[in-house]
Amino acid sequence: MGSKNKLKRFKENETFANVVQPAREDVLAGFKYKGNWASFFGNYNPIVLELGCGKGEYTVGLAQMNADRNHIGIDIKGARFWRGAKTALEQELNNVAFLRTQIELVDHLFGEGEVSEIWITFPDPQIKYKRTKHRMTNPVFLERYKKILKPGGIINLKTDSEYMHGYTLGLLQGLGHEIIYANHDVYKNEGAPPEVLEIQTFYENQYLENGKPITYIQFRIN
Amino acid sequence: MGSKNKLKRFKENETFANVVQPAREDVLAGFKYKGNWASFFGNYNPIVLELGCGKGEYTVGLAQMNADRNHIGIDIKGARFWRGAKTALEQELNNVAFLRTQIELVDHLFGEGEVSEIWITFPDPQIKYKRTKHRMTNPVFLERYKKILKPGGIINLKTDSEYMHGYTLGLLQGLGHEIIYANHDVYKNEGAPPEVLEIQTFYENQYLENGKPITYIQFRIN
Repeated sequence: MGSKNKLKRFKENETFANVVQPAREDVLAGFKYKGNWASFFGNYNPIVLELGCGKGEYTVGLAQMNADRNHIGIDIKGARFWRGAKTALEQELNNVAFLRTQIELVDHLFGEGEVSEIWITFPDPQIKYKRTKHRMTNPVFLERYKKILKPGGIINLKTDSEYMHGYTLGLLQGLGHEIIYANHDVYKNEGAPPEVLEIQTFYENQYLENGKPITYIQFRIN
Repeated sequence: MGSKNKLKRFKENETFANVVQPAREDVLAGFKYKGNWASFFGNYNPIVLELGCGKGEYTVGLAQMNADRNHIGIDIKGARFWRGAKTALEQELNNVAFLRTQIELVDHLFGEGEVSEIWITFPDPQIKYKRTKHRMTNPVFLERYKKILKPGGIINLKTDSEYMHGYTLGLLQGLGHEIIYANHDVYKNEGAPPEVLEIQTFYENQYLENGKPITYIQFRIN
């Protein structure tokens, strides 16, 4: 994307009622919506996050399928989720928000037990061993997710990376967490929820065109 | 391999002094070499296993590199390791044995702390979630390995499977075991021991020809 186009999108994001762009310092000092997202949405519906939402395909897709839940896509790349924010506004989906900040801060963005469900969609697998600390399902991230999830809250991981799929399954098994469902090739096997099969991200479409299997894990943190 | 050739190899295995082919019942009832492999080799040198040894490339290769250790390749497919056994005899390597039995029985084959090191080379990754119990680095297998390894004993996993590599790393991290070294592409990164880079199995050569990265983990069970 050209930098001119990017600047235009940044500007437009500022005018979007469904986009929240806090400064890092403000998040760390005590974020105004932490524990208080009901005030943003004007209701107490369950909150579903997409972490690393990219263009926001999952956030918008899930919001279309579930009008009785609030959906928040989080990403640091505002020019990307501009697409999802714009679509949500055009379709008058008032159960959608996009939050421009770092995923590492997720436990500063939501109160304890404020979140019902988390989606992690096609994250960077961080395949190098030294990159373990940046992998979005490592033990540190799992602890952050646990803090903000309500008891029994669900985490979904959809990825084309066999490495990421394997690492997460092994870690969950080692830590004794509950694996609700796991599949190494969801489009060729039964049992995946409709949300997994009916929503495709931009990258997922490319993987599918190249015949790459898509994996999926649904789990709980004990 | 034709069945005629297989039969010939089975027959020849029976005449090889370096091949041991116990009946399953005899292994379960109390295997004669369990805790007593020094009597087989005629010395108390450290014992190194290759689990699922195939043609025995690693067993023979490691034995060539380390004359002061005893090397045992284990596999149920006797017609395959015939190759390694034959080579070891031709080269007069008296620190090599091949053991025809099921890997699941490994803790019935060796006494407590009798083994110094284990190699798992290009195992079936068992990528389906329901096959977890057959994966050679699952928690049940790790407990078997722990029983027969001496304190501080080392396990090596070499595989082309990103899934197997990831699963094992995640599991080890979750269980709190010690990862000594891990790499997602050993031929393109520094730090792997010479044994990892200088010995190639039959399948590994095919993977390398196809440009597939080879992964490696060296670890200890606490």
